[in-house]
Amino acid sequence: MKHIAILGFGVVGGGVASLLQNNKKEIEALLGEEVSVDYILDLREFPDSPYANRVVHDFNIILNSDVDTVIEAMGGSHPAYEYTVAALKARKNVITSNKEVVSLYLDEFLMLAEENDVVYRFEASVGGGIPVISPLISLLRHNKIREVRGILNGTTNYILTKMFSFGESFEHALADAQRRGYAERIPDADVLGTDAARKISILASLVHGSLVDVNTIYTEGITKIRGEDIARLSACHHSVKLVGRALFGEEMTVFVSPHAVPHNCPLSHVDGVYNAIEVVGEPVGNVMFYGQGAGAGATASAMVSDLMVTYLEGRCYAIPRVRDKAVPASFRELPSRFYIVIKQGTMSDAPNTFMKIEETENEVAYFTDYITLDALQELTKHAEMLTILPILE
Amino acid sequence: MKHIAILGFGVVGGGVASLLQNNKKEIEALLGEEVSVDYILDLREFPDSPYANRVVHDFNIILNSDVDTVIEAMGGSHPAYEYTVAALKARKNVITSNKEVVSLYLDEFLMLAEENDVVYRFEASVGGGIPVISPLISLLRHNKIREVRGILNGTTNYILTKMFSFGESFEHALADAQRRGYAERIPDADVLGTDAARKISILASLVHGSLVDVNTIYTEGITKIRGEDIARLSACHHSVKLVGRALFGEEMTVFVSPHAVPHNCPLSHVDGVYNAIEVVGEPVGNVMFYGQGAGAGATASAMVSDLMVTYLEGRCYAIPRVRDKAVPASFRELPSRFYIVIKQGTMSDAPNTFMKIEETENEVAYFTDYITLDALQELTKHAEMLTILPILE
Repeated sequence: MKHIAILGFGVVGGGVASLLQNNKKEIEALLGEEVSVDYILDLREFPDSPYANRVVHDFNIILNSDVDTVIEAMGGSHPAYEYTVAALKARKNVITSNKEVVSLYLDEFLMLAEENDVVYRFEASVGGGIPVISPLISLLRHNKIREVRGILNGTTNYILTKMFSFGESFEHALADAQRRGYAERIPDADVLGTDAARKISILASLVHGSLVDVNTIYTEGITKIRGEDIARLSACHHSVKLVGRALFGEEMTVFVSPHAVPHNCPLSHVDGVYNAIEVVGEPVGNVMFYGQGAGAGATASAMVSDLMVTYLEGRCYAIPRVRDKAVPASFRELPSRFYIVIKQGTMSDAPNTFMKIEETENEVAYFTDYITLDALQELTKHAEMLTILPILE
Repeated sequence: MKHIAILGFGVVGGGVASLLQNNKKEIEALLGEEVSVDYILDLREFPDSPYANRVVHDFNIILNSDVDTVIEAMGGSHPAYEYTVAALKARKNVITSNKEVVSLYLDEFLMLAEENDVVYRFEASVGGGIPVISPLISLLRHNKIREVRGILNGTTNYILTKMFSFGESFEHALADAQRRGYAERIPDADVLGTDAARKISILASLVHGSLVDVNTIYTEGITKIRGEDIARLSACHHSVKLVGRALFGEEMTVFVSPHAVPHNCPLSHVDGVYNAIEVVGEPVGNVMFYGQGAGAGATASAMVSDLMVTYLEGRCYAIPRVRDKAVPASFRELPSRFYIVIKQGTMSDAPNTFMKIEETENEVAYFTDYITLDALQELTKHAEMLTILPILE
């Protein structure tokens, strides 16, 4: 019999328990043995749950038990970090959905897992139920990865989709997302781009082989996006999407920013709470993975998937080394095309590398030629800039 | 050292050799040993190739050699079937891109691989470079799969995209695809839906656990699609796409047909030679895999990916059993909504379950309510039907 413990009995932890229960027969047939949820660690009690008598409040009980695999679904960096380290050192496999702790300590966890001959997996930390970590690892073994980019946060994508479809302001769309439970009461981690930055840093780290410190990533959220820009860009066949990108050229550049995404890019059609991750590699070309990036069911599916792989394939699953730290090059130095809007009358003559797309009483909108953000801001320093968005190619 | 043989030195087989050569260093670092292409089986000679001296014309040389893994990139059912059986019985792993032989004999190959303690993998047989077989296997272990559906043939998708974008007729778009090398001179396997049928039968077989005989699948190609229908449906926010579908309810239904695909379905935006496969499961929701469905580089990427997994994970990779044969239920009995066009004046009064969307001098177009194809054809048997397309939900 296999023995697991679930840390955190919220929607994700509860979802894992249900999924194991609902697929008991299939899982036993596959593994040839039963998977028993021996312990659930949570601060609360769950007197009405069928797992009521397995709830514990002291992690040491789990550490000193027969549990072979710990499912970490608590979120936050601490004590998730300490529990993960302790579990790996006690030769227990660890499976997590916690992007915060993965983005900060992936290098250390992979090293500890290797040293202790156990498995550390984190498929659910990016893209919820979408299989993306495993296929990316498989692709990067023999492809030259040029770029990984994605719509990594369902809350902001829902807000942008609402703004687009109903011409709503950011504030209205956010309030709607909060009413529906898609956005938290304090929505900063989503709308400021922090959540997307954590996820792109995980993907970048896997490709680069060094941990990309999330704090070094240029991160711009969606709070400054205006309804006017979404409408105008839509008329020019572009969507506005919050995109996390990791580009691998001579240097690695990693950043998160709202982008104008042309309608011929598949990412432009990813709407609502859906996520999508696109990998551009040589020779595979463009490959995209799409699905529900959050939610109890989807995230639990990814964690149980990791659990099955852990039991079926054990140590022989090869995760690339992620060692040392890397500081990516600055987005400010990356030549890009931009959509910009300048307040009417504040720029006397636009350079001829700017293509005017609309002029109103109040503002003038342009598409620029390739230019770095630094050079663009220098060039327009005397003008009043209302909007500035890189264009996805 | 690992020893492989490549059967068929066309674009795919040649692509595998190049990819192994170009990633020699990375592959050696990953495996801890070299991969040597010992033999290439082809009827032709390649005097100018660096592999000239490894070309053989007799499969028995490979069978009796130290080769541990055979890369089958020859296509067609015979002798690919006989060579695969012989290789597996000689305890050699087999990796293939040949959808024809996989769709016909997958059950037998998996059984032989198990009996002989070797690996049989076929990621490249569906979706070219897109990782789809492995993620599907991973998902179906603990999800209730409701449907697998996809745009599985790049040639027909290119033709439909051309017809849509440039208002071209089927004949013109086909001629253009042939000029560009996307369509064969005899394009039947693509345009009649046979290629898509083979691929959906492979995906259906994996989910169902029994081999779905491709000859029992309702298969309708794109030769009857009219430019008028594409234009009219586009105005109603639908694309026309050739979709292979496998639905798993009380019965399994598998079929290939052009569909009217609403613009809010992600498959509607898959254009040109791209492929996409969507999996609908509980609890994971809708997950889609998108990328280049063909071409030397993409297909070779999938085959080398299989080779790496074979060497890294060996026997412990769990492919579900696919045993016995299954005959899917008939698409004719599956209730669906339809787009239909009836010649003007040939149906006196339309049922009130038909919603008229356009009427011209020559024809009347409707969206129907849910109805089976059989019942629809009975209901309209006195009318002259110009077009009939199921609508994707």
